[in-house]
Amino acid sequence: MDAYGHVNNVVHLRYLEEARIDFMFRLAGEAADASPTDPAPFKAGCVVARHEIDYLRPLFHRYEPVTVDIWVTKLNAASATLAYEIKDAATVYVRAETVIVPYDLEKEHPRRLTPGERAFLEDYFDDSAAAPRIR
Amino acid sequence: MDAYGHVNNVVHLRYLEEARIDFMFRLAGEAADASPTDPAPFKAGCVVARHEIDYLRPLFHRYEPVTVDIWVTKLNAASATLAYEIKDAATVYVRAETVIVPYDLEKEHPRRLTPGERAFLEDYFDDSAAAPRIR
Amino acid sequence: MDAYGHVNNVVHLRYLEEARIDFMFRLAGEAADASPTDPAPFKAGCVVARHEIDYLRPLFHRYEPVTVDIWVTKLNAASATLAYEIKDAATVYVRAETVIVPYDLEKEHPRRLTPGERAFLEDYFDDSAAAPRIR
Amino acid sequence: MDAYGHVNNVVHLRYLEEARIDFMFRLAGEAADASPTDPAPFKAGCVVARHEIDYLRPLFHRYEPVTVDIWVTKLNAASATLAYEIKDAATVYVRAETVIVPYDLEKEHPRRLTPGERAFLEDYFDDSAAAPRIR
Repeated sequence: MDAYGHVNNVVHLRYLEEARIDFMFRLAGEAADASPTDPAPFKAGCVVARHEIDYLRPLFHRYEPVTVDIWVTKLNAASATLAYEIKDAATVYVRAETVIVPYDLEKEHPRRLTPGERAFLEDYFDDSAAAPRIR
Repeated sequence: MDAYGHVNNVVHLRYLEEARIDFMFRLAGEAADASPTDPAPFKAGCVVARHEIDYLRPLFHRYEPVTVDIWVTKLNAASATLAYEIKDAATVYVRAETVIVPYDLEKEHPRRLTPGERAFLEDYFDDSAAAPRIR
Repeated sequence: MDAYGHVNNVVHLRYLEEARIDFMFRLAGEAADASPTDPAPFKAGCVVARHEIDYLRPLFHRYEPVTVDIWVTKLNAASATLAYEIKDAATVYVRAETVIVPYDLEKEHPRRLTPGERAFLEDYFDDSAAAPRIR
Repeated sequence: MDAYGHVNNVVHLRYLEEARIDFMFRLAGEAADASPTDPAPFKAGCVVARHEIDYLRPLFHRYEPVTVDIWVTKLNAASATLAYEIKDAATVYVRAETVIVPYDLEKEHPRRLTPGERAFLEDYFDDSAAAPRIR
């Protein structure tokens, strides 16, 4: 929070990170439990290659929560792009995109998405013009 | 730091913020002291409108410091773009750009750059092909 | 979040800070609106002089929120102690206390609590043995 | 940084964490390399059980670095207390203590210090009256 009560721009990136962790570990883990061909999606590792973040309107400190929507806008063999909106019923505060790269953290080199990871991400894929986009 | 000793992507954005604050408040303040037509550059307020951040190589936790270079790549009447590199002598770890918008925090609306702010930013302007760019 | 999914100890201190800001600015501001002898409690400034934090049980990353309870355990002329618990229905994860000191940020010296600040804090005072304590 | 240029109290705790990580992983790892009876001190896991932090004087945002001194004030079979000072040549800004508990993160229960961990911590032990203390 700055002197005028705005939520700081770095804090918004932390909100995006919390949403991404929840998406890639909790939600993907639950999907894997239901269809366990790939028992631990993203556990082999995944890194952030790029962020783009547009701060559209100031968010003031308040008690009421905001929502982070998250979906998939690109899906390649060895990378994916996640899009997000930080918003409430009335206002979109932030739009952002993150390029994630599956990465074998033990062996220290990029890897391909597993079939289970790809199937999970496809369920959240939307690159339609109607989908909110950051550009 | 994650489990493999990498500096987290959000921490890099904090490094950029610390460099930007140092640039816009300490350095710009010293320049204003030397030529005091605009006694307090950026004190009327300035907000972040957009970040782009490319994570090029992992930075591992270590004792040795890294350097953040910062310069100006665009200069408009009511916005400016700052570019940065997080690096050491051997490696560039992160390239990024931030669009900043002068903003009257009391009156809650955008404002134009003051002559003093513009003169300060011009001293750090470089949009040459030789300058490092994030794309 | 560390490698095992625990919420990091620094993140807990941020949770306490968010609760304290909400308590001292939003709640105290609403109380002041209702009884406006002191129109802006804590706006003259207040600093943190000391934290004590006990991490009782690990909190794992999850979607479900936790609650931060906050109350007042000491009230002096020029300082107050806030106590907190981070918890859910089943478990207390963290107990903490913070000594806050009213501080005139413009003039850079400590100040006394205003009558409005004191009246607000008294409404949340509980130093009974039954009240949870960090020691 | 707050509106008056002070380094925020949570940021100080991050400084302490960075010093502690450097102490327990880099320095302890180097000591282990020199005398490799315990090849990876603290790698089995270690958690923070308690922090006490006294904010003695405000630290203003600046270019010059501050130093974090760190040493050991208590050493038990299954816990240790680290003390710190954040300071420069002229001023001590923060004094703090952290109780750390060796913890088997895989098996999720406390463990005893290994002989190599204890030998490393003993090298930094100082509970003399002359040593700076937070109380």
